[in-house]
Amino acid sequence: MSEPHPLNLIVVGGNAGGMSFATRARRLSEKAQITVFETGSYVSFANCIIKDDKALTIQTPQSLKARFNVDVHPDSDVVGIDREAKTVKVKVFGENEWKLFQYDKLVLAQGAEPFRPPIEGLDSEHRIHGSSGKKVTDVAIIGGGFIGIEVVDALSSPDTKVHILEYTPHVFPQLDSDIAHIIQTELQRNGVVVITNARMQKIEKGSVILENHHPIPADVVIGAVGARGRTALAKNAGLAVGRTGVAVNDSMKTSDPSIYAAGDMVETYHRVAQTHMNTALAGPANRQGRLAADNIFGRAVSYRGNVGTSACKVFDLTVASTGLSVQVLKRMGRKVEWVTVHPPDHAGYYPGATPITLKVAFDPDTGVLLGAQAVGKNGVDKRIDVLSTATQGNMTIFDLEHLELAYAPPYGSAKDPVNMAGFAGSNVMRGDVEIIHAENISIIDLIEKEVVDVRSTKEFANGHLKTAINIPIEQLREKMEDLNKAREILVYCQVGYRGYLGYRILKQAGFDVKNLDGGFKLVVDGGFESLQDRSAK
Amino acid sequence: MSEPHPLNLIVVGGNAGGMSFATRARRLSEKAQITVFETGSYVSFANCIIKDDKALTIQTPQSLKARFNVDVHPDSDVVGIDREAKTVKVKVFGENEWKLFQYDKLVLAQGAEPFRPPIEGLDSEHRIHGSSGKKVTDVAIIGGGFIGIEVVDALSSPDTKVHILEYTPHVFPQLDSDIAHIIQTELQRNGVVVITNARMQKIEKGSVILENHHPIPADVVIGAVGARGRTALAKNAGLAVGRTGVAVNDSMKTSDPSIYAAGDMVETYHRVAQTHMNTALAGPANRQGRLAADNIFGRAVSYRGNVGTSACKVFDLTVASTGLSVQVLKRMGRKVEWVTVHPPDHAGYYPGATPITLKVAFDPDTGVLLGAQAVGKNGVDKRIDVLSTATQGNMTIFDLEHLELAYAPPYGSAKDPVNMAGFAGSNVMRGDVEIIHAENISIIDLIEKEVVDVRSTKEFANGHLKTAINIPIEQLREKMEDLNKAREILVYCQVGYRGYLGYRILKQAGFDVKNLDGGFKLVVDGGFESLQDRSAK
Repeated sequence: MSEPHPLNLIVVGGNAGGMSFATRARRLSEKAQITVFETGSYVSFANCIIKDDKALTIQTPQSLKARFNVDVHPDSDVVGIDREAKTVKVKVFGENEWKLFQYDKLVLAQGAEPFRPPIEGLDSEHRIHGSSGKKVTDVAIIGGGFIGIEVVDALSSPDTKVHILEYTPHVFPQLDSDIAHIIQTELQRNGVVVITNARMQKIEKGSVILENHHPIPADVVIGAVGARGRTALAKNAGLAVGRTGVAVNDSMKTSDPSIYAAGDMVETYHRVAQTHMNTALAGPANRQGRLAADNIFGRAVSYRGNVGTSACKVFDLTVASTGLSVQVLKRMGRKVEWVTVHPPDHAGYYPGATPITLKVAFDPDTGVLLGAQAVGKNGVDKRIDVLSTATQGNMTIFDLEHLELAYAPPYGSAKDPVNMAGFAGSNVMRGDVEIIHAENISIIDLIEKEVVDVRSTKEFANGHLKTAINIPIEQLREKMEDLNKAREILVYCQVGYRGYLGYRILKQAGFDVKNLDGGFKLVVDGGFESLQDRSAK
Repeated sequence: MSEPHPLNLIVVGGNAGGMSFATRARRLSEKAQITVFETGSYVSFANCIIKDDKALTIQTPQSLKARFNVDVHPDSDVVGIDREAKTVKVKVFGENEWKLFQYDKLVLAQGAEPFRPPIEGLDSEHRIHGSSGKKVTDVAIIGGGFIGIEVVDALSSPDTKVHILEYTPHVFPQLDSDIAHIIQTELQRNGVVVITNARMQKIEKGSVILENHHPIPADVVIGAVGARGRTALAKNAGLAVGRTGVAVNDSMKTSDPSIYAAGDMVETYHRVAQTHMNTALAGPANRQGRLAADNIFGRAVSYRGNVGTSACKVFDLTVASTGLSVQVLKRMGRKVEWVTVHPPDHAGYYPGATPITLKVAFDPDTGVLLGAQAVGKNGVDKRIDVLSTATQGNMTIFDLEHLELAYAPPYGSAKDPVNMAGFAGSNVMRGDVEIIHAENISIIDLIEKEVVDVRSTKEFANGHLKTAINIPIEQLREKMEDLNKAREILVYCQVGYRGYLGYRILKQAGFDVKNLDGGFKLVVDGGFESLQDRSAK
C-alpha cells in the first residue's frame, strides 16, 4: 500500500484518462506528488455535446487541489520528454520560457486530435469554420460518423438546414449499410440533407464544392471526419507508436517502463478484431487511466481490451452497436453469419411499443458473438449493453437463446429481442433454417428462384419482392403442391418469422428453400430498392 | 429431423409454456399430431396487466390451426393421466362425459395457481372479490409482492384509494428492506396506503379486519398473496413433485420419460440459490416449453436454470432485480457482501438525469455475483438486464469494473452505474476500503464511534447521522489531527464517494475507519430513521 519514497507523478492531459488516473492515484497514495498539465483552460470536462458550455466543467484546479491534492496546470503544453533525465519540458501559454519538471512516472493522456483532410479552405486551426455576425441558415458537416451525426440534432432547427457530406457510401461507416439506411431515412425525415459518396473539392465562402454535385450552401462548415491518437510527443520521445496510437501493454505501460499512456491516444486490444487499435471512447479512457494508477501502485490489474460499444441519438431514434459490423468483418476476411430481427421494444399489448431492428453477427463455426447493431425508438441502448456484456463474457449465439432478462410489459417481452436474435441465430447454426440476406440477392436470383411471399394479401398489395407470388402462410400447406420442386424457393414475410414457418413447412415437404433474413421490412428500411415492387401501393 | 412414426403429442395448458412447446414442436415436425387442452376459453394469452381484455388474446384456435396445424381445445379440463395406457382423461365444460386421448409424449404446462390464505370471507373461487353495481372508492390488495404492486398503478385513481396489506415487514418481500422502502415511499406519494406486518383476521362486506389495526375500508378485495405450481394432476398421476412444483430434469422431463413439464408449474434450478425452486416467470416458461420440444425431437439442449430476473413499474419508478436479495442470502446462510451506489441514469449534464439506487451483492471470497436490485426513474431495467447477463455469464464483481457499456450522454455515463458498483465492490474485495452498512449500525455504534460527515456544511444542515461532526472532505487533510485516533471512525457522505475519499485519507493517516455504504442518501431513502438527526431541517 505504501511506496518506498513519495512518487512524483506527472500527467499530461486533464481529461477522461488523465483525471481518472490522477484521482485514482491519490486514493491509492496520500503521499504521491501528482501534477497535471493540460493545454486547455479546463480539466476533466466531458467531450460531449451539450448546450451550456459551463456545465462541461466538472472540476476546477482549485476544487481538485482541495479534494484530491492534485496540482493542475491549465494552459500548459508539454512540448518534450527527456526520458533519460526523466523530465518534461512545459510551455505555459503567455509565458516566454520553458520549465522542466521531474517525474518518477509519467502518464500520457493527451487524447485524440481531429483528422484534417487536405481540403482547400478548411481552416486547419478551427474545426468549426463559420462566418460570424450573420444568421446561420445552412450548415455543412463534413463526415457522417458518430461525431458528425451527434451534432446534427443540436444544430438542426426550422431556420437552419444541415447538410451531411459523407465520403463513404453511407453514414455511420462503421455500421452496415442497411442499419445506416434506417438512420439516413430518419435524418431526411427531419429535413437533414444527406450526401453520400461525397468528394470534397474545396470550401468557399458560403458554400462547399463537391465533385459532380451542385454547390452545397454553407454559412458554417464543421469538420467531423474522425480523430486519431495525439502521438507527436510520444513519437518525438522515441516511444513505440502503432499505426493508430501509442503502443501500450495491458498495464497501460508504454515501451518505456517509467511512462504510461491511456485514453484516446493509445492503441488497445480490440477483442473482436483481435488486433490493437485506437478506440476513442470515454468509458475505456476512464478505465485505462484508473488502471494505469492501479499498476503504478502495485496492483496487477490487466486491461481486457475493448469491444467498441457505442450509442447515438438521432432525432427520435437511437442507434447503438457493439463489436464489429458484418461489412468490417468481411473486409477483414473473417467468417461471419448474421440474423436480423425486428421485435417490439416491449410487449406489443402495452402502449407505446415500437420495433427495434437488431442485427447480430456471429462466427458460423462456433457461434461466438462478433457484433451487434440496433436501431429503434426505445430500448436500443439496453439491448446493445446486454449484447456487449454477453460478448465480453465470451458468450455465443446459443447463449442468447437462454438469456433470462427482466420481463414486464413496459420493458420487454417474455421473449426479449435478444432472445429472438438468439433463437433465429441458433436455428441457423443448428441447420433448422437456411437464410439468405437481401444484400446477396440479385435481380437474376429473383427471376431464377420461386419467390414466395407468405404474408397476407393485404400486406402483399402494399409492396413486395419483384417476381414474388403470394401464398399466405395459413394456406401454404394446401397450396405448396403448385410450387415447382425443381426450382429453389426464396420464402419471405414481413419480419422473418412467418418466413421461417414457411421454410419449415416447405423444407419438410422436400423443397429446396431459403428464408429471407429480416424479411421484407429490412428490404424496405435497409434501402434495397432494386428488389422491390411497390407499384401496387 | 424426422421421427419414425408421427408422434402424438398432447399438451395440457395453452399459455406461455404450452403454446411455446406446441409451436416449436410443429416447426420441428410437420408430421406430429399436436393437441392442446386448455381449461380457459383462450389460449396463448399473456398473464399481465393490461386494460383491454381483447388485446390479451394473441391467437384463436382457428388461427393456430391454420398457421401451426395445432388442435386447440379450449374449455377442456384434463382430469387424469393413465401413465400405463398413455392416455389423458378430458372433461369438456358443459358436456357430461369424459373423453380419453392417447399420447406418445405428454407435456404438462398448467401454470401456477394463486395461493389462498385461509382468511374468513376470502372467496376461494374468486381472486377479485368485489361488490358490483356500486362505485368503487376503496380497494384492498392482500399481498405487496410483484403481483399485488403491478395492479396498483392500474387501479389507483383520484376516486379510488388503494390499500396494500402486506404480511411481511415490507412490500416486495423478495427484495431488501432498504430498496423496498424507496418503493413504499413512492406508493405513499401517490396516495396508496401501505400497511406492513398486516395480520388478516377476516374480510367483511365493505372492509378488511386486521389484528391491532382499525378496519380497512374495501369495496373490492384482491388476493395477491403469491402463487405455486399447479401440481394436483401430476401428483395424482404419481409423478415426482418437489416442494414448490413438479420435478423435471434439465430436458424438462418428469420422472416419467413420456411426460414433460414446463413453465410455472415446475421446479427448475435456481443458479444463485443452487437449489431447485419454482420460478413463475413468463420468460423462463416460454424457453422451457421450447426446450421440451427440442428434446422430444432429439435436440439435446439443456435448460440452464434461472437467476430470477424481474422488473416492475411503480408509478414513476421502476424496480428490478436479479439473483437473490441480501436478506434471502443471509437467511440461506450464505456469505454475502454488497455495495450500494446512486449514480445518475445518464450523464448529469444532459437534461433529465435522475439517480438509480443500485445494490449489488457478491460472494466476499470469490467476488461471484449473487444478486442485484435497482430502483429509479429511468435506465433501471437496463442495468438489471446487464447484471443478469453478467450473472449468467458467471462474472464477478471485478468483471463489472471492466465492463464496456454504450456511453452517450442521453443513455449513460463514461462510468456507467454498473461500473460504479464494480469499482465500489472491487475496492471492498481488494481491501482498498472497509465499509459498514446502515442496517448493521446501532445507536450505540453512533455514540461509541467518531462519526464524521464529509459533506458540505449546507448538506449537513439538512440532516445527518446522529452524533456526527461535519468536516467537509476538502478540509479533512488539515482537520483530521483533531480526531481521536483511539476511536473507530465512521465516515460518510451523501452517496458514498466522498466518504470513500475520506476513508482513503484517514486510513493512510493511521486511523481505524469505515465508510458508510450508500451514504446518507440510503439512510434517508432506505428508511433507517433511528439513525437520523433531521432536527436542523
